[in-house]
Amino acid sequence: MRIVRTIADLRAALSPHRGETIGFVPTMGALHEGHLSLLRTARSENATVVLSIFVNPTQFGEAADLAAYPRTEEADVALAAEAGTDLVFAPSPAEMYPAGFATSVSVAGAITGTLEGAVRGRSHFDGVATVVAKLLLAVQPDRAYFGAKDAQQVVVVRRMVSDLGIPVEIVARPTSRDDDGLARSSRNTRLSAEERDVAAVIPRALRAAQDAFASGIRDPHRLTTVVRDELAGAGLEPEYVEAVDADSLEPIATAETPALLALAVRVGEVRLIDNVVLGVDDLVPVTGSVS
Amino acid sequence: MRIVRTIADLRAALSPHRGETIGFVPTMGALHEGHLSLLRTARSENATVVLSIFVNPTQFGEAADLAAYPRTEEADVALAAEAGTDLVFAPSPAEMYPAGFATSVSVAGAITGTLEGAVRGRSHFDGVATVVAKLLLAVQPDRAYFGAKDAQQVVVVRRMVSDLGIPVEIVARPTSRDDDGLARSSRNTRLSAEERDVAAVIPRALRAAQDAFASGIRDPHRLTTVVRDELAGAGLEPEYVEAVDADSLEPIATAETPALLALAVRVGEVRLIDNVVLGVDDLVPVTGSVS
Repeated sequence: MRIVRTIADLRAALSPHRGETIGFVPTMGALHEGHLSLLRTARSENATVVLSIFVNPTQFGEAADLAAYPRTEEADVALAAEAGTDLVFAPSPAEMYPAGFATSVSVAGAITGTLEGAVRGRSHFDGVATVVAKLLLAVQPDRAYFGAKDAQQVVVVRRMVSDLGIPVEIVARPTSRDDDGLARSSRNTRLSAEERDVAAVIPRALRAAQDAFASGIRDPHRLTTVVRDELAGAGLEPEYVEAVDADSLEPIATAETPALLALAVRVGEVRLIDNVVLGVDDLVPVTGSVS
Repeated sequence: MRIVRTIADLRAALSPHRGETIGFVPTMGALHEGHLSLLRTARSENATVVLSIFVNPTQFGEAADLAAYPRTEEADVALAAEAGTDLVFAPSPAEMYPAGFATSVSVAGAITGTLEGAVRGRSHFDGVATVVAKLLLAVQPDRAYFGAKDAQQVVVVRRMVSDLGIPVEIVARPTSRDDDGLARSSRNTRLSAEERDVAAVIPRALRAAQDAFASGIRDPHRLTTVVRDELAGAGLEPEYVEAVDADSLEPIATAETPALLALAVRVGEVRLIDNVVLGVDDLVPVTGSVS
């Protein structure tokens, strides 16, 4: 496995492999089982597997959040090699955004204005769309793999890729979950043991909404109230809990499938997000290979 | 020569030619000698030559200007074939911007805030950057050819391509000029015979600034005043005349090379732009092949 730090070196390293399929997993590092399962899926579907590790400063609203984001490159590289990665692209911010950089890619409308966009501001998804566009153009993969935990990110990336006509297949994989159902996230490492126990209410709350949906409830407000009540029982007040159309992220009057129920909540200092597609996702722990 | 109207057909038509070089000339049609000279240059430098014809609605501020823009596809296709074009991509607005389209590419800063951006608004260059990005990703050429008449457009496109890492060489060719020096433009066809005579003052005014520069004048205000005075002599009041850094388009205190002197002026109803790189461009008529 090779590590490269410049786009020029990345292109040179990939050049001999252009004739065969390239699978790409973009990450901000601090790899966990969710990332590894994306890498293993990419491994099973492509001749060459590329991982990027880049903590993208332009998608962080708060400097403190950026500073606190875990950086564990040495461990990441070892895990990536084990998962069958061929090439790691780990650029510096100056490589991605050299002096004079002035371009941004932006997705307008409900897709970026709701959920995370409403709380973190549209600039968050401008940062995401710009860096993903740049990474996709640098790697030029056949397939790029994303986790469904960041459901809105997947919708934004799909829209951007479709609108600009970037020739890549966007593959979304189910959210990887710990044994108690908590969605795996690099941010989980910042939870204390006590906070980690409290956080387990999040998948329970989503499962309660899924159960309510299964029992026939379709009113978005009643479904989100189920979630709020569960979270409140553990002393958590969410930043948002919303049920929206899973494709357009527009508000819905009734939760016919596919509807996405998504939330953000702070547990201590750590901001966590999770979601479920009503009537579809089973919220079971996902361990090991998912391919 | 083939004509295709969808990105899918474009990709299919180009697929067999990917091993060799592809040269691309993006236009809004109404082809004139300037476009043809770009096509001939592309012909001499690449195995395959692609022309796009698309009057991009998102870069027009005024609906009337968009409606009045000349559309002459039949004649364009004949001229393109004569100039050695292999493939014409002439999509509809709905092909380029299907329902739900929500993505824009934007270049911030002085590059888009000055000159045309100051008059037409930044949204003009958002429209340009977005459509050029989409066209470059559709054609995936080795080289794309632009005319220097739209100097700011060239700077914006170079910045966008460099920032996003779109793998293409941007080639800017000297402005093509009629016998009296008027920059060739699709808009010139809308000038009456009388207006066409008046418009000839524009290259004379730029040549006067070039002469002033050659005589040692470096004060931007004095250089632009030379231009204003010449235009005023023909009864024309420009929308702007500015001398800026040719790369950053930032204001300059002294017109050391490379400095760009650019102007926009209405002759009757027709808005014309032109420019000269001080100490570099000779403003002579360019006819026939420029390669």
